[in-house]
Amino acid sequence: MNHGTSKAEPLREGHSRPNVLEIPAARQHVDRGPHSYERWLIAKLLRMTGNPPLRFQLWNGEIIEPDGATATFTILLSDPKALYQLVSNPNMAFGDLYSSGRLEVDGDLPNLMTTLYRSIQQAKQSWPKWLEAIWRNHHPRSTGLSEAKENIHHHYDLGNEFYQLWLDRAEMQYTCAYYESPDLTLEHAQLAKLEHVCRKLRLRPGQVVVEAGCGWGGLARYMASQFGVKVHAYNISKEQLRYARDAAEKQGLSHLIDYVEDDYRNIDGQYDAFVSIGMLEHVGKDHYAEMAQVIRRSLKPEGMALLHSIGRNRPMLMNAWIEKRIFPGAYPPSIGEFMGLCESGDFSVLDVENLRLHYAQTLEHWMTRFEQARDQVTELYDEHFTRAWRMYLAGSIAAFRAGSLQLFQVVFTHGENNALPQNRRYLYDSPAAPEAR
Amino acid sequence: MNHGTSKAEPLREGHSRPNVLEIPAARQHVDRGPHSYERWLIAKLLRMTGNPPLRFQLWNGEIIEPDGATATFTILLSDPKALYQLVSNPNMAFGDLYSSGRLEVDGDLPNLMTTLYRSIQQAKQSWPKWLEAIWRNHHPRSTGLSEAKENIHHHYDLGNEFYQLWLDRAEMQYTCAYYESPDLTLEHAQLAKLEHVCRKLRLRPGQVVVEAGCGWGGLARYMASQFGVKVHAYNISKEQLRYARDAAEKQGLSHLIDYVEDDYRNIDGQYDAFVSIGMLEHVGKDHYAEMAQVIRRSLKPEGMALLHSIGRNRPMLMNAWIEKRIFPGAYPPSIGEFMGLCESGDFSVLDVENLRLHYAQTLEHWMTRFEQARDQVTELYDEHFTRAWRMYLAGSIAAFRAGSLQLFQVVFTHGENNALPQNRRYLYDSPAAPEAR
Repeated sequence: MNHGTSKAEPLREGHSRPNVLEIPAARQHVDRGPHSYERWLIAKLLRMTGNPPLRFQLWNGEIIEPDGATATFTILLSDPKALYQLVSNPNMAFGDLYSSGRLEVDGDLPNLMTTLYRSIQQAKQSWPKWLEAIWRNHHPRSTGLSEAKENIHHHYDLGNEFYQLWLDRAEMQYTCAYYESPDLTLEHAQLAKLEHVCRKLRLRPGQVVVEAGCGWGGLARYMASQFGVKVHAYNISKEQLRYARDAAEKQGLSHLIDYVEDDYRNIDGQYDAFVSIGMLEHVGKDHYAEMAQVIRRSLKPEGMALLHSIGRNRPMLMNAWIEKRIFPGAYPPSIGEFMGLCESGDFSVLDVENLRLHYAQTLEHWMTRFEQARDQVTELYDEHFTRAWRMYLAGSIAAFRAGSLQLFQVVFTHGENNALPQNRRYLYDSPAAPEAR
Repeated sequence: MNHGTSKAEPLREGHSRPNVLEIPAARQHVDRGPHSYERWLIAKLLRMTGNPPLRFQLWNGEIIEPDGATATFTILLSDPKALYQLVSNPNMAFGDLYSSGRLEVDGDLPNLMTTLYRSIQQAKQSWPKWLEAIWRNHHPRSTGLSEAKENIHHHYDLGNEFYQLWLDRAEMQYTCAYYESPDLTLEHAQLAKLEHVCRKLRLRPGQVVVEAGCGWGGLARYMASQFGVKVHAYNISKEQLRYARDAAEKQGLSHLIDYVEDDYRNIDGQYDAFVSIGMLEHVGKDHYAEMAQVIRRSLKPEGMALLHSIGRNRPMLMNAWIEKRIFPGAYPPSIGEFMGLCESGDFSVLDVENLRLHYAQTLEHWMTRFEQARDQVTELYDEHFTRAWRMYLAGSIAAFRAGSLQLFQVVFTHGENNALPQNRRYLYDSPAAPEAR
């Protein structure tokens, strides 16, 4: 049953173009009809995934309808091996087969994925132990100092040109936006997110802020230009830092921002605020205590800290395909696990907000732009890459819609700090989105 | 070293007047001066508690000043045994000795306690293991179905007359108020709390709400009268229920509220909201999974749940004296432990707010009224009781001020529920306090 998975292994090594499969057997077509055990496998697969409204169109054109349900989506399989791979390791195979074009989907991909997520979440509760064991996701790879560099390079150094094709044109934010109202544009929602974060940190002119994992530096520039603070912004992605420094230069903010090419573990100095947007997912649970100590020593007695991270409702491994092909080392924590960090630093948690559906909407906006730019993406890389990223975006939309992923913003401070706001109204005194302000 | 603690043991059995010590040796006075090892014990005690600005006045009038520090507070000890008890088990002895009058304090009691909390929190970090072992708090008693009844009876059935002397006159709330602005009266802050909670639950007319542990029924009446919902309110304290039913009758709300004398574990039916204010502290960690299942089965698919509880920054046992004399079975969870409940119910946490300093202020208001009513309290019970409750209120003020205790409001819903608010502005559209609205 595992002749399918071995083919995918070499991918693991991919670095700057990590999602490019050699597609030896791609789109091969087989003329023979399905064997009876292949029909049985499909029926079993549908049952084990909770009988989603899904029909299969096989390599010879034959269509297998689901038992009892009316199909809304069609999955096309190009060859029998694709079926075997899917059955033996669906978490990995669905993405890989789709990327290589051996699995095709007829119907809206995010909607199909949402339906699948919901259906599997339900069905999972009555899976036999052996199936859980076979279909389980594996542990994320290490996130030590050198591995972190490699993990981050894998994803974030794909090229600024690539990300510019589909991220917001305001500040290149590759994290969840804040749709303060549902009709915001991606640009406005991303600026609203930056504003919301700054308000939560209660920034005041003249303060000094440290940012761990600054992406293309948008938050740092926003904090400097809108709140008059100085920022030390850390990142280990060279590509992003180059962009960040250029942008700060152009905006005349270089004197306020120090973009530092270094790991967050090497942060030194003391700050009025510690902020990290979308980095904790890459830190790895084993390093939470270490990160807590970094924050503890960097935060002034009345300093405020904010971590913004993808998370879970309960501890769960990252989807294997995403961890392997897209985000090496990624692990989204439950709030309970997140609290391991806060507790080990003896911090007091002041505010937790869950922006799950905001990430679904952010991803929908990204995906629309990604689709509009798909020819350019394929030109930059190849079709396999384009399909892999489409799957990643669609799967992520589905995960946030179905509640498999969450988005937490956690505000905390030293346990002894009594300089706390009276209430949270200051977050809502005026709209966070620029147009409405 | 343990001849002191045995004296306190019989107290354990006290029920409706739990804090009444037989004071055989109370206020005994000894004329002899301190032995050299007694001086040594005091010096050691001061050093181990982080050298707080504290002088001791001994049984013979002799004063021992702290080393190096200028004393702001004086602690008077009536007899040598009091010193031994204090040294061998300060967590228990400080409260017991104060209650019986064998330890007296010159200076503001909440301020002294705050100073002590802060000082000990610091000093604790370098305690030797043996001292930690000797001075540790013990595990709370069981909170099973029958024990819970006894635990709750111990505290909440002290008599409505007693609580009416010092709780707010609006709705008899024996939980943290919400000082939306710092100058609110206790009454307004308690009403603001009720309003804040109802807004977080997004109550709408016609909904049905279940409340676990309803106290004197104030929240239930507020929800019914202000939001037009029906309420099933559970409590196992007979005294409180009698008051609650009377009050609902008087306010013409009986048709909307069903006050049920039963354990929260026996809640049945399905509700638009599940709310519990100040009960989780009494549930006990071992019962969180059970409580999660109760909420899971009682909450409609789009229902909202809110738990409001005293908590900790990290797992820690309750102060031994409070657990033994005041709140049997009490255990305030860290958010991490709290999440054990939410995770085991597969809930999605939407909002966590920490109202720590609001509880300090609530307690200050209670204590002021308590002091004004102290003669009446002593008449109802006796002086030992009055002193024990003064110590409890002062110690609680100190614990919230020093960050040893937190107050968490956690809002959550089923993991699959996508009927979520766009943002949290609806909590702040208008003031929650009645006067300002």
